[in-house]
Amino acid sequence: MVPGTPAPGDVWAALHSVRRSGPLVHNITNYVAMDLSANVLLAAGASPAMVHARDEAAEFAGIAGALVVNIGTLSPEWVAAMLDAATVARDRGIPWVLDPVAVGATSYRTRTASDLLALRPAVIRGNASEILALAGAAGRGKGVDSTDSSSDAVDAAGELATKTGAVVAVTGEIDVVTDGRRSVQVAGGHPLMARVTAMGCAASAVTGAFAAVVDDLFLATAAALAVLGLAGARAAVDAPGPGTLRWRLLDELHMLDEATVLEGTRIS
Amino acid sequence: MVPGTPAPGDVWAALHSVRRSGPLVHNITNYVAMDLSANVLLAAGASPAMVHARDEAAEFAGIAGALVVNIGTLSPEWVAAMLDAATVARDRGIPWVLDPVAVGATSYRTRTASDLLALRPAVIRGNASEILALAGAAGRGKGVDSTDSSSDAVDAAGELATKTGAVVAVTGEIDVVTDGRRSVQVAGGHPLMARVTAMGCAASAVTGAFAAVVDDLFLATAAALAVLGLAGARAAVDAPGPGTLRWRLLDELHMLDEATVLEGTRIS
Amino acid sequence: MVPGTPAPGDVWAALHSVRRSGPLVHNITNYVAMDLSANVLLAAGASPAMVHARDEAAEFAGIAGALVVNIGTLSPEWVAAMLDAATVARDRGIPWVLDPVAVGATSYRTRTASDLLALRPAVIRGNASEILALAGAAGRGKGVDSTDSSSDAVDAAGELATKTGAVVAVTGEIDVVTDGRRSVQVAGGHPLMARVTAMGCAASAVTGAFAAVVDDLFLATAAALAVLGLAGARAAVDAPGPGTLRWRLLDELHMLDEATVLEGTRIS
Repeated sequence: MVPGTPAPGDVWAALHSVRRSGPLVHNITNYVAMDLSANVLLAAGASPAMVHARDEAAEFAGIAGALVVNIGTLSPEWVAAMLDAATVARDRGIPWVLDPVAVGATSYRTRTASDLLALRPAVIRGNASEILALAGAAGRGKGVDSTDSSSDAVDAAGELATKTGAVVAVTGEIDVVTDGRRSVQVAGGHPLMARVTAMGCAASAVTGAFAAVVDDLFLATAAALAVLGLAGARAAVDAPGPGTLRWRLLDELHMLDEATVLEGTRIS
Repeated sequence: MVPGTPAPGDVWAALHSVRRSGPLVHNITNYVAMDLSANVLLAAGASPAMVHARDEAAEFAGIAGALVVNIGTLSPEWVAAMLDAATVARDRGIPWVLDPVAVGATSYRTRTASDLLALRPAVIRGNASEILALAGAAGRGKGVDSTDSSSDAVDAAGELATKTGAVVAVTGEIDVVTDGRRSVQVAGGHPLMARVTAMGCAASAVTGAFAAVVDDLFLATAAALAVLGLAGARAAVDAPGPGTLRWRLLDELHMLDEATVLEGTRIS
Repeated sequence: MVPGTPAPGDVWAALHSVRRSGPLVHNITNYVAMDLSANVLLAAGASPAMVHARDEAAEFAGIAGALVVNIGTLSPEWVAAMLDAATVARDRGIPWVLDPVAVGATSYRTRTASDLLALRPAVIRGNASEILALAGAAGRGKGVDSTDSSSDAVDAAGELATKTGAVVAVTGEIDVVTDGRRSVQVAGGHPLMARVTAMGCAASAVTGAFAAVVDDLFLATAAALAVLGLAGARAAVDAPGPGTLRWRLLDELHMLDEATVLEGTRIS
């Protein structure tokens, strides 16, 4: 095991800390993702808020434990609020997570992601196509679903981490987390999760909750993905389809106990 | 029992009236709450509509049986539409419900809630932190989840009701409903309901449906909360987590029959 | 059987084609419908994207397999984006579906629907009240739920199809699909589906997915409605309420196999 690899006990400690602290997570996320993100955060023990008006986003970011900015559904007003809120987060040392949904699909998205990147997100989470596009490599994404595999994006993720100072997570069949020096793989989840909308966005939201309470953001990110993957894998057992998976995931996340996390964490 | 306390038979009559009339409930509510609010209204027998454009909100309010204004996710255009629609509702005697989500958390929210309050909502529903903040007391809310208990807010609710002429509901472990003269407690629900996003918003939406068909708004509000609490408590039986609770709540609300309501109503 | 009536084998071939191609479906749809629409599209095998900013809607429409425009929740910016995207779709021969939610309820809605109609949608799907209103007949709709039956709207649908060149679908207890020359009835579904919000919007979204991969849009529309109705009817078996129905619908849609489609399709 690579030195610095989070142990199952670290993952449990991180989840326990989220539950105990109930961190306020400020989300500026897309319309499709709001419901699942809020419910996943509540099931994980955090306290979600969705605040995007330019008149209040910056003020609200200042009282949050973490900020999650997801560019899934954009508009000029929202982009302005994202930049305002991210600036406050950066200036005050509040960790903020960038989810560059479908970056590369339109020039507006690419420009917005680039402007946000300049505000130094603490964590970046995307699928392989998005991370490749963000790193300037040749993403071949179509819309929001990845057409590249995580492993293709590993090099791009490392470069992106080194260049930006962020922890970068590429999620897919196997998740990869890197800070440019350390790099781990997080196994878990289930293919059916890709048939539930906004599951990747929910992963970003949960990462925000963990980043709010765990100082080591590399650990926070790996732990968040491990926990969500574990809940998803358990939810998928005998699930006939994505409808069942979605609600069971929330139940499993709510019920995860120490033994299950210690036994089920797969970080290497 | 205090005179004027709604009896179980009143609660059932109110639910039956919602189902028979299928009132059109106009919601200007936050993005996170729209799905659950619409589904709870449909499960209760009402007909929900979400209409927030300034070009049509006022016109639409005029054809609705009730209006629900929820400030969860704000923007200048929406605030203008909220004020337009509430003005129409007030002028035409259409009952309207104010849900002051996270009032006190930012100055924009506090200002907006104050402007809406001046348009004389028929009912105000919030958690303890929100009612305290709205009444000018020292709310200690963080985001949308209450950090105060309902009982702390009882005095504030009474003052708010007297000052505004509205029925005020403080929801939490025990709900309190007051019109400044009468005051009742509504028991029911389950702690797991707080782990499902927008459950409070859904309570406001259902209150709108009951206010559309029951003239006595004190009764309408207590009955709406009793019905939702009863459905929630039944949904929580053996529920492993919030995922299950959410869909079962809709089933239970849809299935509630006279015997169950008469037996399960807890208003005192 | 009328010549040109889609056979069960055609319906299965169409669903199989959606699953194999995973078409990118660009939705500009209302806030309430986004979650269910995206999940229904994923369960059907398509790849949904929700993109509504004026800065990117037209560009995105150009890379999509189909466009779905739903006027459920309007704002001036969105209407502009809808018109931009529909223009691109029309000019490039990308099939686009119009869902005229609650047209007739406000003048803003009626005006917007009329502007969109001028951009020649390939398919129009609405409930009876909406189709009557769109055809200029006397819709008596209240909000988004139909107060007319499908059969009342059959003549209006035929006229609308002839006038616009679109395939027109009127959904309700029995769905009717016509292109002005051919006309079929699609049986299936369950009354409980009307107690789940945005089910009609989801039908429009699925129609978009089928229109992206089946050249004959009359067949594509009938097949989409047959598939959704079949999944809904199966989901409703022993369902205690709308909560259960909603998630089971996604499971059933995901699981539909050839034998079930061949046996369960009811187009006449």
